[in-house]
Amino acid sequence: MSDNTTNQGLEGITVAETRISDIDGESGELVIGGYPIEELATNATYEESIFLLLNGRLPTDRELANLRAKLAARREISDEVRAVLRRAAEEEKPAMDALRMGAATATIGTEDGTPQDDAQRVIAAFPTIVAAYWRYRQGKKPVAPREDLGHAANYLYMLSGEEPTDAAIRGLETYLNTVVDHGVNASTFTARVVVSTESDLVSAATAAVGTLKGPLHGGAPGPVLDMFKEVHESGEPEGYVRETLERGERLMGFGHRVYRVRDPRAAVLSTAAERFYEASSNTEFFETVQDLEECAVDILAEHKPDRRLETNVEFYTAALLHGLGIPKDVFTATFGVSRVGGWMAHCLEQLENNRVIRPRAHYVGATGRTWTPVGER
Amino acid sequence: MSDNTTNQGLEGITVAETRISDIDGESGELVIGGYPIEELATNATYEESIFLLLNGRLPTDRELANLRAKLAARREISDEVRAVLRRAAEEEKPAMDALRMGAATATIGTEDGTPQDDAQRVIAAFPTIVAAYWRYRQGKKPVAPREDLGHAANYLYMLSGEEPTDAAIRGLETYLNTVVDHGVNASTFTARVVVSTESDLVSAATAAVGTLKGPLHGGAPGPVLDMFKEVHESGEPEGYVRETLERGERLMGFGHRVYRVRDPRAAVLSTAAERFYEASSNTEFFETVQDLEECAVDILAEHKPDRRLETNVEFYTAALLHGLGIPKDVFTATFGVSRVGGWMAHCLEQLENNRVIRPRAHYVGATGRTWTPVGER
Repeated sequence: MSDNTTNQGLEGITVAETRISDIDGESGELVIGGYPIEELATNATYEESIFLLLNGRLPTDRELANLRAKLAARREISDEVRAVLRRAAEEEKPAMDALRMGAATATIGTEDGTPQDDAQRVIAAFPTIVAAYWRYRQGKKPVAPREDLGHAANYLYMLSGEEPTDAAIRGLETYLNTVVDHGVNASTFTARVVVSTESDLVSAATAAVGTLKGPLHGGAPGPVLDMFKEVHESGEPEGYVRETLERGERLMGFGHRVYRVRDPRAAVLSTAAERFYEASSNTEFFETVQDLEECAVDILAEHKPDRRLETNVEFYTAALLHGLGIPKDVFTATFGVSRVGGWMAHCLEQLENNRVIRPRAHYVGATGRTWTPVGER
Repeated sequence: MSDNTTNQGLEGITVAETRISDIDGESGELVIGGYPIEELATNATYEESIFLLLNGRLPTDRELANLRAKLAARREISDEVRAVLRRAAEEEKPAMDALRMGAATATIGTEDGTPQDDAQRVIAAFPTIVAAYWRYRQGKKPVAPREDLGHAANYLYMLSGEEPTDAAIRGLETYLNTVVDHGVNASTFTARVVVSTESDLVSAATAAVGTLKGPLHGGAPGPVLDMFKEVHESGEPEGYVRETLERGERLMGFGHRVYRVRDPRAAVLSTAAERFYEASSNTEFFETVQDLEECAVDILAEHKPDRRLETNVEFYTAALLHGLGIPKDVFTATFGVSRVGGWMAHCLEQLENNRVIRPRAHYVGATGRTWTPVGER
């Protein structure tokens, strides 16, 4: 207890053993539940990923049908929660605030359950919360969830009110799988700290939403889309990149704290986006995105020859989600719709072999003060 | 990054430099903003403690009046939030769930503010949330906050609907000051992790409520009261203690992870409780509490001669809050009503010199798995 070296970011401190995901930042590899992200993301439905995260293996046919049914049955939110979301939307609160409100109130109308039940409840309710908020933001009524649709399809359906195409469903499944877990990042760590006191998984999910809201964590895909639109309109990717760097600004959608090479999730999402834009015969916008990547990687290499800056997950998140018709205002909330699966799996893992997470602080404040009544100050 | 030693509880890891509070577990001393807890807790109003935590010094007359007015003006919660709390109460959700819901929705009806504004908003709203929930739990209507009352007095007023006595107000001020901060405990750490991504203070407070809810952190004062009542009825403290220990159970209200001597907060709360019970001419119950402490400390010393077990903060929290007429069901939420001040101060401190808090995990899961379609599993 006598070492006062402060490690503010907890860099290099190992806080858990995990079976959920493994990141190799040097080689640019991400493994989820034993599967390379490329294989899992492009093949699985989100429900299969969830089963894998919560149970450590892929489900059988029957287990998958069972999980789908359980999640589908837990999607509805109560009238009181909808009223809160409507008010949040009317006041134009950010989508992440609405998701925090919806997560915090997700136990209303449900019976007390096991941690597994709580996990299923929040995973199932997140799309309903975000979609209801978004409908209210547009002055529309929420679209009730449909039990016959899968998790990804139902989210698209609740957002737009229209049944999505197979290409859109596959695109969203791939996105949701790609970002479902990524080691003990700040939001996942938050969830683990919450349950470390033997609190519940709904509280943990609510807390993690708050952390994900921060622009240093979940907050950049929206501005990336603005960049795409600007470049698409001007048709001048090179000019855009050079001017941004000349102004001393950071180019959005490039570089990551962990990855030294291209973020493996960027590759998965790039392929998924390409497939989706091709299937929907709307390739022009996506060509702009690809041109911008190519041109930016080259210019960044000139600009910072000692450090390779490649596209990160946010770059192709913006391209893919925009293609799928998901509005920019709910990009980060859609990230939450996926990541809640990872949060819940980490909570269950934490509870298996738990210890309260309580670091220390080094006191550098005043000492030996004596009370003075307010009149004498 | 190659050290895979796992420190699950982050024991001995210093994550921040702080000017807010300092704990000396060996000598049993707690300093808040430079003042020994004994001086601050017994002299200050809660608003003075809050000013101290947020500004690093005690307020002048004028500054104190200003803060009181600002907090008083931020107490109201919206109709939609009340409807959620009513539903939570009707479903008999725990008070900490209601506080999580109220915290998460505290931005409704407010303008976007600075971190200081957010801090004042949640500090001001917490008593209103807990009191409204408790009124609904009893099938009553909430009592609207009164701007002319101080923070502590108004909380008691909203709970009971009656103007509290001076002795009760002083008792609650002392309680709120005593537990307002205690280093980087699990809930305070949660709040710091949330804002470390540059998220907001309302999200941080909501997250911290979730952590405080866990029985390993904020959850034991209720059962301590049950113990008091049982012993008060039987009149046999010695029998109770011996039988509990013989059954191999832990005696509630004794021992603390940090303090090796008597928790200094127990001493402050013991004195405050004694004063309150004397002032209200209701000393019998408190005599039971004191007899139980004396008898338990002796028997515990026999039982575990190598480790001194003394009363902790929960022991006298239960005695004092019960005396003040605060129902057991909202003991932990009342802890939150106080501790939110510390959380908010830590968030502002974190933002002054911020770095994302992101430890790492050591992967021990499966590797090299290959995708198999569901029909082939």
